[in-house]
Amino acid sequence: MYSFRNDYSEGAHPKVLQALADTNLRQTVGYGMDPCCQAAADTIRRLCAAPDAAVHFLVGGTQVNLVTIDAFLQSYEAVVAAQTGHVSTHETGAIEATGHKVCTVESPDGKLTPALVESVLAGHNGTEHMVLPRMVYISDTTEIGTVYTRAELAALRQCCDVHGLFLYLDGARLGSALTSPDNDLTLPDLAALTHAFTIGGTKNGALFGEALVLTRPMPHFRWHMKQRGAVLAKGRLLGLQFQALLEDGLYFDLARRANELAFRLRDGVAALGYPFPVASPSNQQFPVLPNETVAKLQEMGYEFETDHPVDANHTCIRLVTSWATPETAVEDFLRDLAGC
Amino acid sequence: MYSFRNDYSEGAHPKVLQALADTNLRQTVGYGMDPCCQAAADTIRRLCAAPDAAVHFLVGGTQVNLVTIDAFLQSYEAVVAAQTGHVSTHETGAIEATGHKVCTVESPDGKLTPALVESVLAGHNGTEHMVLPRMVYISDTTEIGTVYTRAELAALRQCCDVHGLFLYLDGARLGSALTSPDNDLTLPDLAALTHAFTIGGTKNGALFGEALVLTRPMPHFRWHMKQRGAVLAKGRLLGLQFQALLEDGLYFDLARRANELAFRLRDGVAALGYPFPVASPSNQQFPVLPNETVAKLQEMGYEFETDHPVDANHTCIRLVTSWATPETAVEDFLRDLAGC
Amino acid sequence: MYSFRNDYSEGAHPKVLQALADTNLRQTVGYGMDPCCQAAADTIRRLCAAPDAAVHFLVGGTQVNLVTIDAFLQSYEAVVAAQTGHVSTHETGAIEATGHKVCTVESPDGKLTPALVESVLAGHNGTEHMVLPRMVYISDTTEIGTVYTRAELAALRQCCDVHGLFLYLDGARLGSALTSPDNDLTLPDLAALTHAFTIGGTKNGALFGEALVLTRPMPHFRWHMKQRGAVLAKGRLLGLQFQALLEDGLYFDLARRANELAFRLRDGVAALGYPFPVASPSNQQFPVLPNETVAKLQEMGYEFETDHPVDANHTCIRLVTSWATPETAVEDFLRDLAGC
Amino acid sequence: MYSFRNDYSEGAHPKVLQALADTNLRQTVGYGMDPCCQAAADTIRRLCAAPDAAVHFLVGGTQVNLVTIDAFLQSYEAVVAAQTGHVSTHETGAIEATGHKVCTVESPDGKLTPALVESVLAGHNGTEHMVLPRMVYISDTTEIGTVYTRAELAALRQCCDVHGLFLYLDGARLGSALTSPDNDLTLPDLAALTHAFTIGGTKNGALFGEALVLTRPMPHFRWHMKQRGAVLAKGRLLGLQFQALLEDGLYFDLARRANELAFRLRDGVAALGYPFPVASPSNQQFPVLPNETVAKLQEMGYEFETDHPVDANHTCIRLVTSWATPETAVEDFLRDLAGC
Repeated sequence: MYSFRNDYSEGAHPKVLQALADTNLRQTVGYGMDPCCQAAADTIRRLCAAPDAAVHFLVGGTQVNLVTIDAFLQSYEAVVAAQTGHVSTHETGAIEATGHKVCTVESPDGKLTPALVESVLAGHNGTEHMVLPRMVYISDTTEIGTVYTRAELAALRQCCDVHGLFLYLDGARLGSALTSPDNDLTLPDLAALTHAFTIGGTKNGALFGEALVLTRPMPHFRWHMKQRGAVLAKGRLLGLQFQALLEDGLYFDLARRANELAFRLRDGVAALGYPFPVASPSNQQFPVLPNETVAKLQEMGYEFETDHPVDANHTCIRLVTSWATPETAVEDFLRDLAGC
Repeated sequence: MYSFRNDYSEGAHPKVLQALADTNLRQTVGYGMDPCCQAAADTIRRLCAAPDAAVHFLVGGTQVNLVTIDAFLQSYEAVVAAQTGHVSTHETGAIEATGHKVCTVESPDGKLTPALVESVLAGHNGTEHMVLPRMVYISDTTEIGTVYTRAELAALRQCCDVHGLFLYLDGARLGSALTSPDNDLTLPDLAALTHAFTIGGTKNGALFGEALVLTRPMPHFRWHMKQRGAVLAKGRLLGLQFQALLEDGLYFDLARRANELAFRLRDGVAALGYPFPVASPSNQQFPVLPNETVAKLQEMGYEFETDHPVDANHTCIRLVTSWATPETAVEDFLRDLAGC
Repeated sequence: MYSFRNDYSEGAHPKVLQALADTNLRQTVGYGMDPCCQAAADTIRRLCAAPDAAVHFLVGGTQVNLVTIDAFLQSYEAVVAAQTGHVSTHETGAIEATGHKVCTVESPDGKLTPALVESVLAGHNGTEHMVLPRMVYISDTTEIGTVYTRAELAALRQCCDVHGLFLYLDGARLGSALTSPDNDLTLPDLAALTHAFTIGGTKNGALFGEALVLTRPMPHFRWHMKQRGAVLAKGRLLGLQFQALLEDGLYFDLARRANELAFRLRDGVAALGYPFPVASPSNQQFPVLPNETVAKLQEMGYEFETDHPVDANHTCIRLVTSWATPETAVEDFLRDLAGC
Repeated sequence: MYSFRNDYSEGAHPKVLQALADTNLRQTVGYGMDPCCQAAADTIRRLCAAPDAAVHFLVGGTQVNLVTIDAFLQSYEAVVAAQTGHVSTHETGAIEATGHKVCTVESPDGKLTPALVESVLAGHNGTEHMVLPRMVYISDTTEIGTVYTRAELAALRQCCDVHGLFLYLDGARLGSALTSPDNDLTLPDLAALTHAFTIGGTKNGALFGEALVLTRPMPHFRWHMKQRGAVLAKGRLLGLQFQALLEDGLYFDLARRANELAFRLRDGVAALGYPFPVASPSNQQFPVLPNETVAKLQEMGYEFETDHPVDANHTCIRLVTSWATPETAVEDFLRDLAGC
């Protein structure tokens, strides 16, 4: 039985593995200063229409978040996030461990808006007795699968400019976001509207890796990376993977496929009468099932996360698809759910 | 022309790549809780004759050093290292960034001895006005290629026990150390004599990865890892690689070969009359060459690091071999050096 | 015109100043290891009926909070506080700067309850992906003037014991709390029910100083203090002040007087028809006044903090009394308010 | 018997106490924003001929060092100090606890020179694999009593300018330094030649307090202070003390007197034939005595620190005088030493 637990249950897309194999005995300098990383960075700059952006490659999501946020902030500055934000909940205090407060605000759909950001600012008086919120952290897709529109992101950036804040977008699932039917953002938009954003590889075809795009000059960013143990010795592995994924659009093809399978799941589950409290236009779906149905599916061997209990008899579960999800896995699941 | 710059210029041993390819579409849980990591941990416990040891897999050397040292120490405690120690010099203050002082002492051969450790302790008065040295950091091989003997390591451990210190051995180049002609240590010795040590994969056949062996119970070690961004989402990649390297001794075969090529280099360079200030029985060799010879080699395309200037006309260079170094590269280098 | 801005607008009670003058040329050892600090610590242990408690003297509130919380927590552990908690709002991220997350929960009256604490715990899954809440931070009086009862504190401690949490009570305004008509707690209760609590001097008769009572053995607490710059060279100044305040009950006399003046203010303001959204039985009072009245009082020269706007035309202000507030200041204020 | 243990064994100069008493019931705003601090800051700016300097008042030496160094440095930057430097040895890793490495170099006389600073720089390669030394920390007087000349400080500053380093001078014993016969520095010199320096009050007439002079604009310095618990609630206590000490030169009178008593001690001890390995022109003197003589003095009740053993039979001790040392204490000591 298939695991819908997450989008990093398998390895890498075969083209990525092939790229590693093809170059395996080629010698390069270490630490991401090699031609593979330079080529991938050039590709990303080109796709982003951002010739002056700096591109860094890091191994994982918590790592890139803690290094980036710490690099942008002075020690008395804080980052604003939705209460569901990954940096607030699921990184074991990684941001605080670098010395910075995460100021959270409840968001019904996992997204931040100018009004929500300003409600956080309103709770800070600008004196030395309180932290200074200086960065806004968002993720696209969000932790609950929603996506930002261009207008929403532009409004956030305008809000940030008014208040002197940096805007950082965590794109761990950026592929799913940019290929969502609800999306109208492009990579050039992201480069124009954020001070930093990531293009997540781990959840969309790579063995691992997050590409960080910095549109603001940060000459010592590599010092921050190294100090946090975030420089991969054989950095080229990151460059090779991103080049394989991005040079010809494979990254978006994979994400589109993951989304389509998620929608097939969604539509099939909904057709069986199960509700979805939050509409998700991406590769994470959150239906509510009776607890006994959840148990039956688990007994059959299906794996997924139980997001939260809805009431005594129902649970909201999370189903995640990826580039690697077989169509048959979706069909099997829907058939088995119908039989529950 | 070959680069002798380091032992992580190429990718991974083909068996490692094959293991990744063979299991690519297998689904596993994330974060190193998968069967591949469990199998590799079991292998390591077996090879170490340490059934109760905890084994964690991390991506890189600075990462494993900062997480481990911080996890062992209270905030007012410090780590003792040789002045050449990697944690002191080449990790951009990563240990200090977790809040801990690195107390250094000069060591002629890169190794720490009970006398050197005690000289550091003697400089600390045990009051609350000074840090409390609590851990000894050593590396095997050291940064200058030397290796510890069993007697030396046992003496250090005894010294640590007397003074209530933890002993941590950074084995980024442990393969080269354990297969060195000067070595009489075994993995069970390391497990018995240290509180923690690493088995380095990056420099000996893996794409990346350091296996950390903890012989002291540390129930929350994974919290420390996660907080520092040191948990790989597809953790199985680490387990697979270490299993491939360690299950049948490949790890040591590769290291032995790297050493043998280094000795061939050493003997050839020495035969040409160039001195080696420090005798290195491992895969890093440090000959002293006239500056003009260094320049000629570089013009030919050879790559290597210049360790330090010896005098106005001579430079100590570093030549590093690895499992991937072709025999012909050594022969070519010696022939071309002879022709300088 | 008097300033009701806070309870640290004046210097020290004359008896405290006299104690400093009387002992001025006496030589003592530094850093709080002197007989004055020992005597004060003995007095506190006696008053707390806690012969085994450790007592440390620190200069200020943010300082004692950051040192204590950091000393109790491992790096992946967090502290739970009310959203209004001083450590969460008004210490410029001091706790986060030591690496720890502050997990907050909204509390209508500024107090934490077992239910509120457990709601925070429920949001943490106990895995290494989230911080581990390990300490509960409360203040008595709270930031909005409320006080804990013995039953409430006992329930919190029981909750902490069930969940393996430390309980820390910030007593910056402990004098006002313990002499409040709503209070039934004693110093021995505090010593029995908390793992650590402070007796605030700054806001109740001292020039400065917070006495920290640790009922849990923490042998290296002074190392934590020193590392954070929290050891006063002439530590005896702290011991002398606390001894002067506590040896014969002056501390409680001063607090009782401050409370009584606050109640006179409260009753007088209420008699003029102004509402108090939260009933405060201590030396901080929070009436709601029309904005024009606020402005008139300020024009007259009265000083106070405006806590928050209530609506477009009304503001909640904070009036604080202290041991040093003259009775005439209260009478003048009430008369002038009546004339507004 | 008198204690020559240090220069903070007594309270404050009577004029300082009087200033506190005279203003005791005056109300002021808190946190150092009061007229007393403004007046003292103005006095300091005038004495320093530095009308644009920012002046902050902090409670203690470790506190001001850790706040200042952290405020000047980015996280990957380090501070250079003599191996005997207070920040390196006697602050329990306070600088490292803020995340910064202290790079040390041995100095025969406790002072740094351009050559010593450049030897540290030479050990750093400027890449992201090593910290970037960015500040030079010196103290005047040094930990072993020596003082800087104007030429020496100017040379250091020039060296700092060449290499892009900040120069910070810890003046915990600045009074003793500026009134030393070997000194030719003035406060305006210090303001012109350093980016930051402190005027120590604790060891020269105040109850406590260090005035920090920042000649470089640092608009958020108070945020750094507050985050480290280094803002005194009744900040005026600091302003009042420094104003009392500095407005009419008392500070220098007190220091001159301490020096003169130290020289009387030095000359008397030397006349008895005891050597002084390092010549100290300030209020700390380091004679070498036979161990049995040390023991006899201690039996008589004299207190002092034993700096370090010289050989099996001799110890270097430290004798410290202050503004409060009675002349008779010096005479008694010399007489009793002569009788040993």
